[in-house]
Amino acid sequence: MSITNKVPVGLLLSKTKYELLAIVAYSFAIGIIDHYSYLEGMTLPLTIPTLLGTALSLLLAFRINQSYDRWWEARTVWGAIVNDSRTLIRQLQTFVSPQGSTVISFAKRQAAWCYALGESLRRLPFSDKVKQYAEDYENHTNIPNALLLKHSEEVRMLYLDGQLNPFQQIQIDSTIASLCDSMGKCERIKNTVFPGNYSMLLHFLIYIFATLLPLGLSDYSIAMEVMLTTLFAGIFLLIERTSIFMQDPFENMPTDTPVTALANTIEINLMQMVACEPPKFAPATTYYQL
Amino acid sequence: MSITNKVPVGLLLSKTKYELLAIVAYSFAIGIIDHYSYLEGMTLPLTIPTLLGTALSLLLAFRINQSYDRWWEARTVWGAIVNDSRTLIRQLQTFVSPQGSTVISFAKRQAAWCYALGESLRRLPFSDKVKQYAEDYENHTNIPNALLLKHSEEVRMLYLDGQLNPFQQIQIDSTIASLCDSMGKCERIKNTVFPGNYSMLLHFLIYIFATLLPLGLSDYSIAMEVMLTTLFAGIFLLIERTSIFMQDPFENMPTDTPVTALANTIEINLMQMVACEPPKFAPATTYYQL
Amino acid sequence: MSITNKVPVGLLLSKTKYELLAIVAYSFAIGIIDHYSYLEGMTLPLTIPTLLGTALSLLLAFRINQSYDRWWEARTVWGAIVNDSRTLIRQLQTFVSPQGSTVISFAKRQAAWCYALGESLRRLPFSDKVKQYAEDYENHTNIPNALLLKHSEEVRMLYLDGQLNPFQQIQIDSTIASLCDSMGKCERIKNTVFPGNYSMLLHFLIYIFATLLPLGLSDYSIAMEVMLTTLFAGIFLLIERTSIFMQDPFENMPTDTPVTALANTIEINLMQMVACEPPKFAPATTYYQL
Amino acid sequence: MSITNKVPVGLLLSKTKYELLAIVAYSFAIGIIDHYSYLEGMTLPLTIPTLLGTALSLLLAFRINQSYDRWWEARTVWGAIVNDSRTLIRQLQTFVSPQGSTVISFAKRQAAWCYALGESLRRLPFSDKVKQYAEDYENHTNIPNALLLKHSEEVRMLYLDGQLNPFQQIQIDSTIASLCDSMGKCERIKNTVFPGNYSMLLHFLIYIFATLLPLGLSDYSIAMEVMLTTLFAGIFLLIERTSIFMQDPFENMPTDTPVTALANTIEINLMQMVACEPPKFAPATTYYQL
Amino acid sequence: MSITNKVPVGLLLSKTKYELLAIVAYSFAIGIIDHYSYLEGMTLPLTIPTLLGTALSLLLAFRINQSYDRWWEARTVWGAIVNDSRTLIRQLQTFVSPQGSTVISFAKRQAAWCYALGESLRRLPFSDKVKQYAEDYENHTNIPNALLLKHSEEVRMLYLDGQLNPFQQIQIDSTIASLCDSMGKCERIKNTVFPGNYSMLLHFLIYIFATLLPLGLSDYSIAMEVMLTTLFAGIFLLIERTSIFMQDPFENMPTDTPVTALANTIEINLMQMVACEPPKFAPATTYYQL
Repeated sequence: MSITNKVPVGLLLSKTKYELLAIVAYSFAIGIIDHYSYLEGMTLPLTIPTLLGTALSLLLAFRINQSYDRWWEARTVWGAIVNDSRTLIRQLQTFVSPQGSTVISFAKRQAAWCYALGESLRRLPFSDKVKQYAEDYENHTNIPNALLLKHSEEVRMLYLDGQLNPFQQIQIDSTIASLCDSMGKCERIKNTVFPGNYSMLLHFLIYIFATLLPLGLSDYSIAMEVMLTTLFAGIFLLIERTSIFMQDPFENMPTDTPVTALANTIEINLMQMVACEPPKFAPATTYYQL
Repeated sequence: MSITNKVPVGLLLSKTKYELLAIVAYSFAIGIIDHYSYLEGMTLPLTIPTLLGTALSLLLAFRINQSYDRWWEARTVWGAIVNDSRTLIRQLQTFVSPQGSTVISFAKRQAAWCYALGESLRRLPFSDKVKQYAEDYENHTNIPNALLLKHSEEVRMLYLDGQLNPFQQIQIDSTIASLCDSMGKCERIKNTVFPGNYSMLLHFLIYIFATLLPLGLSDYSIAMEVMLTTLFAGIFLLIERTSIFMQDPFENMPTDTPVTALANTIEINLMQMVACEPPKFAPATTYYQL
Repeated sequence: MSITNKVPVGLLLSKTKYELLAIVAYSFAIGIIDHYSYLEGMTLPLTIPTLLGTALSLLLAFRINQSYDRWWEARTVWGAIVNDSRTLIRQLQTFVSPQGSTVISFAKRQAAWCYALGESLRRLPFSDKVKQYAEDYENHTNIPNALLLKHSEEVRMLYLDGQLNPFQQIQIDSTIASLCDSMGKCERIKNTVFPGNYSMLLHFLIYIFATLLPLGLSDYSIAMEVMLTTLFAGIFLLIERTSIFMQDPFENMPTDTPVTALANTIEINLMQMVACEPPKFAPATTYYQL
Repeated sequence: MSITNKVPVGLLLSKTKYELLAIVAYSFAIGIIDHYSYLEGMTLPLTIPTLLGTALSLLLAFRINQSYDRWWEARTVWGAIVNDSRTLIRQLQTFVSPQGSTVISFAKRQAAWCYALGESLRRLPFSDKVKQYAEDYENHTNIPNALLLKHSEEVRMLYLDGQLNPFQQIQIDSTIASLCDSMGKCERIKNTVFPGNYSMLLHFLIYIFATLLPLGLSDYSIAMEVMLTTLFAGIFLLIERTSIFMQDPFENMPTDTPVTALANTIEINLMQMVACEPPKFAPATTYYQL
Repeated sequence: MSITNKVPVGLLLSKTKYELLAIVAYSFAIGIIDHYSYLEGMTLPLTIPTLLGTALSLLLAFRINQSYDRWWEARTVWGAIVNDSRTLIRQLQTFVSPQGSTVISFAKRQAAWCYALGESLRRLPFSDKVKQYAEDYENHTNIPNALLLKHSEEVRMLYLDGQLNPFQQIQIDSTIASLCDSMGKCERIKNTVFPGNYSMLLHFLIYIFATLLPLGLSDYSIAMEVMLTTLFAGIFLLIERTSIFMQDPFENMPTDTPVTALANTIEINLMQMVACEPPKFAPATTYYQL
């Protein structure tokens, strides 16, 4: 694992700049009010905003940990997809007898399934490899699910033709069920909205902190007050934003799970397993790669 | 995942307003007693309430993390229900031979099971789709469990008629057992009372903190004392309340697991799998949606 | 989930009162020694006990989290028992053919097993329902294990009589193995002593803290010293005690896993599944209920 | 669960006394240098060592939590061994037909396996019960693994003799595979060295803290400086040492997983299951017992 | 488990020395600017950098915990490889009938697979034991996957020859699928880049802290300012670097998962199981050993 990947800082800033501007404006306003109004005489011991800052740091540290767990789960699920794709093809090669070109068509469909799942999760239009399969399932809103159904139908045919015995059919069915589980887990991570009141609570506490901090710095110049308030509020916002980025690992952004690269790896593995020429992939030039 | 969902702030406030009022009254009383009574000369270094505040923040941060885990587990269990519902129908389509209208009736019953489970968990009356099934099981207090039993009875019939071989029966039975597990997990999350002495401890510490803080602020005006005490006690109460909301994900509230939306998704998927016209759903206008 | 359950405060206090008295006496002694002895001139910056208090809060927060995990695991295991009990009877109903009164006797024995396990864990004498089974296994020290063995023997008979095919026997055996796992997990939670040196460390740090705090409060009256020391030591002891309560969820106390209520639920479910009249249970008047 | 077990304090001290002496000497040296050398004028705000102390407390709290998880995992694995031992014998009793003395020999070998595993993990010479089996496997370095192989060979014989059908053979093989997994997990916990640079980091930070603290206490007497430094460094060392004790649960020490007591329990259970007279065990007089 | 392993301190320093130099230079520059420029009059209460330092400590403590989890997962996966390797050979010995030299060739290939996987993960050239197998799979980019395919093909032959019954084939296939899962998990841990914006956030906060700290120490000499800033920044960098080391457990470094030693252990076990002479291994002289 390397940590040298370029993270487009511009992207991160572009997403947080309005919030940062808001917090600067807010800190400035609080600073002004604090100095030139009836609040002038109102001071706080600095311990008070520090206590709130400590509590907020704790909550944000847990928050970023929860996002990390979610990001890691997404990556783990795609790891399971790699494993189950290989296992599916290995099982078919071991079990089907006599063996014609069936396994090759399974391998191609499985590779297409990986691309289809990745593209569905990222809400992208299907690529060419997937389109040729998707056309057969126009009445399905969930193309990856339709492809798994097609896998199962082919397995049924192989069983009815006697190319698979009953045990082998069940064993392959279990592998397909495992792929179905992984698909559903990705959809869960994609579609689950982070609890709204929890998010709101953290956001609200950042603003409370930005309100209390200037009152605790009344002995210092207004420039210092505004600068420090902006700095700390900005840091807390940045931690919050980093959490939000990490918890959404299928958004077609640099911190994503690298679904395209993983699907490429799977395709190469499967093609080599069935002794087909694997496709060549240009080295990825953008975003994270496996 | 989006975090833009509207959380009805009114709802959150309506649930905490009495506690907030209580804490304001309490802080005010403590402030008054502190200033105008024999306690006037009694002061504390501010470090003392700060230490308690830090300890309380730690406990609340762990507390909110435990609630988050519970919320996420609930969502994971419903994710598993999505997966197993699809797997059940895919297995039936692959295994049953010759295939009549049996699989369609399974798909409809499975969709009804999802609605029935969601409505039971939320303690709602059954909707029309569920009622037509529920009527057959009047002597059952647990309708979803009765529907699973019906699934199994149908599988038994298919096996006895020779439409399923013994292996296939076992494989489908495993999927039904997995649905039964998910059902039980939902019931566990719904019915498990959070340990009473742990809740009480946190609540008690918030009030202790609200008692100590004014003593540490004796150098400041009584208005400041009451304001800060109310603010901090309010923040701690809000964190506690957010935990309580999150840990109960089947209460028919905005932070719920979106069981209706999930059941809609499952119904559409299953109907498309068995080539039936899926129902149309009006876009949800309230609460969280998948 | 509700948090309104009454926790008998008296019970909690009765368990901690001696420790609280000890800590009051200890704080008082330290306070006296600090004021009226050669230690009078010995003062500490308050930061020093605060640092120790922060470290102690951290350790106790992790400690209470570990206890919570253990409590939640106990509840999860009993959730699995609910699921597997239903699955066992559903499988028997689906598989056994022709079906006589066998399944009913299984359902009754399974309900008895749940009561027997709960009562063993709580070290209570067996109730009447269990006794009629227990009498047959006088040479067994572990009655629930003996009942599982009886289940298996009956399954063996059904197989030898041809009422179950080989696959069905294996599938039911897996469910019984899962019940056996749950039983063992409960015994593990019941019997595992919390690491002694870890407990001791926390207890020891509470007393160190109670020794340092008065030295940091030398500027204040002895009454204040003793009061604050008692308060903080008491709070830390209370957190520790709450952990100890939670980590022992089978002690026949209010914070227990509600094993009797869960066994009642299981019995009702199973009786309805086999179309028997379920027993009526008086509403529980004491302790936690499902 | 009780927390009243005696932990031989002498043992704990005997392991840490040299480190404690080292830290006293070190603190004393730092104190002397601080007072009587060119460092005399060098002071620090106490906030600086406090910040380091807070960071160190955090790291140590996570560290002790990781050790606890490892200790609990060890206990969980032995719980699984209890369950699988019972399941193995129950399966053999249910499946083997006709049934001779085979199951009894399995039960005895399984009990011996438990002792053999426990003694291997603790690097003890084999007890008499194990020796009579171990003699047959002189060319094996891993006796428990050899006993599992023997189990499997006997299962093969039963299958070839027709006393087990193919399904039953597979089911028993799965239970043996599960025992093999538990064995490997124990070996992993026993043999995995805690990451050296992580341990070193914590140790190093304790010494840095012991260097900074006296500089922050320059206003106080040298006796106080040395005493407080020793106290805090000692507390941090004690937390570290408690972690190290807990993370090694197979070292034949009081905080161990009670493998002998667990093996005794298993032996009694298995003997009662096969209707043999279970051995009598003298109540354990040393170390933790189940 | 021992913690006495030598960690080449030189190695750790060689990796961090440039960062440490950079932070020294940076602290020095900030110190100079702070003293001799228009910032001279600019001071901060020390509480402000302390608050940031606390937040940073929290984030780093969670960070190191995440790395530890990853390191432990890698070790757990290799533990599963040990278990499944033994199980695979035990199953083949139990199932194959009549038994020729087939099992021995499986055992040798399985040992080679372990070496091949370890060497692939560490990006090392294949050792001699692996090369003799790798030559047959020149068109495969993933040699361990090709070896698993070879396992499966051999199992297929045994089944077609009647040396394995259908159930036994499935059971062995499950074990191979489990090895395939472990392989994929290792690849996931090896190839997953830690989220870039999360790493960047922590790094960025360390530099912000190093900027604020001198402003909070304006009352002290510039030497003290630079020394303390360097010390704290260095400590935070060291914690960060320790995390990075731990999270990459397949980099052929001392903190690695000891894949070679584990593969040796597996080879010895397997050879003894099939009654072959196990190889002799010289005691490892470098890096961690099992």
